Amino acid sequence: MNVTVRGRRRACRTVDFDTAINAVRLIDQRLLPHRFVILPFTDYQKTARAIRDMVVRGAPAIAATAAYGLAQGARAFRGRDLALFGAHLERVRTTLAAARPTAVDPANALRQVLESMRQGSTVAEQQATALAAARAFADASVAHCEAIGRHGLPLIQDGARVLTHCNAGWLACVDVGTATAPLYAAQAAGRPFHVFCDETRPRCQGASLTAWELAHQGVPHHVIADNAAGHLMQRGEIDLVIVGSDRVLGRTGHVANKIGTYTKAVLAHRHRLPFYVAIPLSTLDWELRDGGEIPIEERSEDEVLGASGAVTTPGRCSSSSAARPGRPAYVRIANPSSHARNPGFDVTPPELITGIITPVGIFKPRELWRHRHRLGGPA
Amino acid sequence: MNVTVRGRRRACRTVDFDTAINAVRLIDQRLLPHRFVILPFTDYQKTARAIRDMVVRGAPAIAATAAYGLAQGARAFRGRDLALFGAHLERVRTTLAAARPTAVDPANALRQVLESMRQGSTVAEQQATALAAARAFADASVAHCEAIGRHGLPLIQDGARVLTHCNAGWLACVDVGTATAPLYAAQAAGRPFHVFCDETRPRCQGASLTAWELAHQGVPHHVIADNAAGHLMQRGEIDLVIVGSDRVLGRTGHVANKIGTYTKAVLAHRHRLPFYVAIPLSTLDWELRDGGEIPIEERSEDEVLGASGAVTTPGRCSSSSAARPGRPAYVRIANPSSHARNPGFDVTPPELITGIITPVGIFKPRELWRHRHRLGGPA
Repeated sequence: MNVTVRGRRRACRTVDFDTAINAVRLIDQRLLPHRFVILPFTDYQKTARAIRDMVVRGAPAIAATAAYGLAQGARAFRGRDLALFGAHLERVRTTLAAARPTAVDPANALRQVLESMRQGSTVAEQQATALAAARAFADASVAHCEAIGRHGLPLIQDGARVLTHCNAGWLACVDVGTATAPLYAAQAAGRPFHVFCDETRPRCQGASLTAWELAHQGVPHHVIADNAAGHLMQRGEIDLVIVGSDRVLGRTGHVANKIGTYTKAVLAHRHRLPFYVAIPLSTLDWELRDGGEIPIEERSEDEVLGASGAVTTPGRCSSSSAARPGRPAYVRIANPSSHARNPGFDVTPPELITGIITPVGIFKPRELWRHRHRLGGPA
Repeated sequence: MNVTVRGRRRACRTVDFDTAINAVRLIDQRLLPHRFVILPFTDYQKTARAIRDMVVRGAPAIAATAAYGLAQGARAFRGRDLALFGAHLERVRTTLAAARPTAVDPANALRQVLESMRQGSTVAEQQATALAAARAFADASVAHCEAIGRHGLPLIQDGARVLTHCNAGWLACVDVGTATAPLYAAQAAGRPFHVFCDETRPRCQGASLTAWELAHQGVPHHVIADNAAGHLMQRGEIDLVIVGSDRVLGRTGHVANKIGTYTKAVLAHRHRLPFYVAIPLSTLDWELRDGGEIPIEERSEDEVLGASGAVTTPGRCSSSSAARPGRPAYVRIANPSSHARNPGFDVTPPELITGIITPVGIFKPRELWRHRHRLGGPA
């Protein structure tokens, strides 16, 4: 999508690969919205660490990063022994897969690249195939997001007021985004609409990333506290909710997504508002049989006990001073001697979900299994 | 309640009056949890500004501050002309009442002090009565909180896990608190329990004030993101919810409270968890006939777009370094060119509320009107 830096507008992908230096190139999302920097990660361990440290986040973006990371690790291998190469690949795969456990997409991406590599009969052939497969995965990811946009477009009526949670935008993908794809499609179709971005504590991806994306694309929006959505629904100021997901159970329709998603689904249900989840096919998990089995990351309590941002004076940081952010800092908000609980995700049951928007169409969550062949599921 | 500053434990009230310098003395809650400072406000305009700027917050604490502010304004009048004094009092009353519009308690407190003053037939007599009436209001406020604690105590079973939102603790009152009163009563009774404090964005009164209070009283607790409560309820980790309120409609049982309260009530209802609202009688509004009539403050967008705290390094601010907070700062979290909506309160309808804990007993929200005589309501 588009980024305007120092008055210059340019197209950009969230995740890319630099063949010359065998590096995965990522927008450093920890610096957004205050600084726009693209960093190279020059070996697979660094790429895994970038995933873990949330330089890159969002299930589809992590998946593409993992795919490129696997190609990167494969290409760094020196030698011709296929058995040693296989053992090396297994280390690379395990390292990348373990970087963040909740999303199913990276595991799917890694499997896909490894399967393609089997076409090669030598180490060199497999190394070349690895990069081609990773690129194919990334390109397909963009095409899938565009297809989500086409299927989701009819949901965005003229003047629609859409709530979204966290960031399931192009920063969470290779490009275009999942939850944002119908919005960007509506914008391209010239339809007016308004977005409410939940700030999404504790890491505030809605306030910092989704708002940044929407502003750079010229989409009208407001940031709101996570606490405010219920009130806005009560007052009739929200028409529908679209979120992304880190894992959707193909057998049951349970949706794991950023903490707070479940709350928004409960609120939407009470107010009879449509609640949609937009995902690429790689987010579908066909194995697990119960939402309770989805592993939920418990993240550092420091995320809840404080917040990160650019030091400034309230009211000073309007668009005119956007180019000169203050020093980045972490402030402790909570009482110094108190501790926090910090579950990173929650699980929304299918009865609260109106539809799952996929690259091949919109499905009721409980109908995913019946349509598993179209959705790339098991036989 | 108790405050431990530099190792010394002392008892303290949130709102007090210093007769010698005709000043209202307030704990500066904008500096908590990082610094504990009591400030004198030496005229009624400064006292009104302290209310508006949230030096003091919480409906019962604002009410006592307004009562003392009225006495302060009355005492500052020079002259014997009762008509001029009356006009002056009206200016003082209007200034204090307008400082924050949502809560009904200050208006009730001001009316109560003014009615007492009618006993005096000279300016001097009325000035003396004003201070006595303000003190009586503050003392009664403490007694009411203690009575809330007695009535709410049976709700806190052994091992109970209690969710609370915002701060309805002793910092929100003259002392003891409303939502916290049953907790402090349970602690005094030796019952073990655990509190989850919603951080309560955007101003984070749960993380900064409730957690501070509970820590100073030795009550086990965790801070959680507002987004996490639904997940914890889903996992069976919360047994009941107790919140305070800024205005309860005696005719209908609608409850206005900090933004996000409604969301917690919707979640509790879904999970069949008891949801209680603890209030002094001054929070009851017997006039309004519809929750939709309650004025909802739209506060500065800067509260949502950033956060305030002590600059530090994540993980550094453990209990050992509690005495040495970093420099206080405001950090901009949101995209610099984005704007926010910031409704300060929401309204919870009676069907989501298990009971209203008052100083005279626990009532179903729809039974308040029937019991209006016991609750100090109209004839």
